[in-house]
Amino acid sequence: MYTHEVTLRVRYGETDKMGFVYYGVYAQYYEVGRVELLRSLGISYKSIEENGFELPVLNFNINYKKPAHYDDKLTLKTSLKEMPTSKIIFFYECFNNNNQLINSGEISLVFVNKATKKPCRAPEIITRRLSSFL
Amino acid sequence: MYTHEVTLRVRYGETDKMGFVYYGVYAQYYEVGRVELLRSLGISYKSIEENGFELPVLNFNINYKKPAHYDDKLTLKTSLKEMPTSKIIFFYECFNNNNQLINSGEISLVFVNKATKKPCRAPEIITRRLSSFL
Amino acid sequence: MYTHEVTLRVRYGETDKMGFVYYGVYAQYYEVGRVELLRSLGISYKSIEENGFELPVLNFNINYKKPAHYDDKLTLKTSLKEMPTSKIIFFYECFNNNNQLINSGEISLVFVNKATKKPCRAPEIITRRLSSFL
Amino acid sequence: MYTHEVTLRVRYGETDKMGFVYYGVYAQYYEVGRVELLRSLGISYKSIEENGFELPVLNFNINYKKPAHYDDKLTLKTSLKEMPTSKIIFFYECFNNNNQLINSGEISLVFVNKATKKPCRAPEIITRRLSSFL
Repeated sequence: MYTHEVTLRVRYGETDKMGFVYYGVYAQYYEVGRVELLRSLGISYKSIEENGFELPVLNFNINYKKPAHYDDKLTLKTSLKEMPTSKIIFFYECFNNNNQLINSGEISLVFVNKATKKPCRAPEIITRRLSSFL
Repeated sequence: MYTHEVTLRVRYGETDKMGFVYYGVYAQYYEVGRVELLRSLGISYKSIEENGFELPVLNFNINYKKPAHYDDKLTLKTSLKEMPTSKIIFFYECFNNNNQLINSGEISLVFVNKATKKPCRAPEIITRRLSSFL
Repeated sequence: MYTHEVTLRVRYGETDKMGFVYYGVYAQYYEVGRVELLRSLGISYKSIEENGFELPVLNFNINYKKPAHYDDKLTLKTSLKEMPTSKIIFFYECFNNNNQLINSGEISLVFVNKATKKPCRAPEIITRRLSSFL
Repeated sequence: MYTHEVTLRVRYGETDKMGFVYYGVYAQYYEVGRVELLRSLGISYKSIEENGFELPVLNFNINYKKPAHYDDKLTLKTSLKEMPTSKIIFFYECFNNNNQLINSGEISLVFVNKATKKPCRAPEIITRRLSSFL
């Protein structure tokens, strides 16, 4: 397993009238988690796209246990458990200031060749960098 | 089963650099779907909150089949299949202009007493209005 | 002057912990306003882009007079007062359910040739359609 | 003048189909700028609200000079030039990776007593902390 941790400060506009982080905002947080996990491996998601890949989301599943509030400093742990094929699955756990798990989830994405719009294998840079961990 | 349909026009700011609706935006669309389903039953979600309930999301699960694009007019079908208890589960199917299913999902929410912060039964107005359908 | 009116229902995720529509959300509402103004003239903003134009925003200025709340049905009046050149300026007035002005503003955008990335004249379809009004 | 600098990494969902940061997203960035300016003075915006104040936006004005792109690391400089009264005005300059000014603007907010909903003076903690700078 390869895990990477980021911290995220809740922005005012990310809260809703209940005073909680709006449930849809975690899609953005989880995206930050996977981009920074890749960056920690020396891989820029931006350059993956520039090299002819797209990475649309296939499935997003999230379980909410506790709310987050304005100005909370959240810790998001993002993990890869299996070597990506044409699919890559990120697992998430999000913790609040008190180290309580507030939500968890997973997101599957598929590598697509930008030119042909067909699914394709994960770029070799990703599998190579992950090979010592998975 | 009780089903309600809304149409949603994709806004520019809802797209991302792939040219697709950002995957997290559907959380907002699905929220519009359930609010309008309730309105079609004569129930204002706003007044549910004003009557002392909160309705946080427990689980959000969505499968993406095709992307949506800027200015698309999407049709979102929201359904209730079972009478809500303290939990209510909405089922979703989202279609594009060509009547192709572009994503589907479900969202579970829990009724919470605003004062005690404890889960509680669905407000009677909801179960009464649904009783002829479910 | 050419004016077009749209109604917008405030979404839950558009509110913040003050219980008001977050001040940045009006950028999206104003964008809907100008897109629907163009549509009312028989012009699709999407097709403008497809015909080789981009229309980035130069200036956005908004004065907030009153807050909007969840589920409010807002009326947004968007106006053009002058024939667009390479610049186009939209004027806005946003009203709540009680017909109170809650904010007003203006947005300047510039027509850019997508290929050269240089400013260019407004597409002829826009000036032609507006010629009976301005 | 008191100035504070933050860096912001552009998120995928903050881009639009032009490939740029959506013009409305800067409202969130500017909000981060002012919250972190206050934090640099030892003031938590959250505690201001908890002490009975609200701080709605009166005016937001922004000039866009260049676009920002996905994954850019932006530097946002937020400044106070005058001691706040019941109004507080933040000035902004946003720079890209190459230290080019990409946009600038200002935001006026008003201190409101949460109980009476009337404008009121800036909390004493703010004027005291700023007194050596302004």
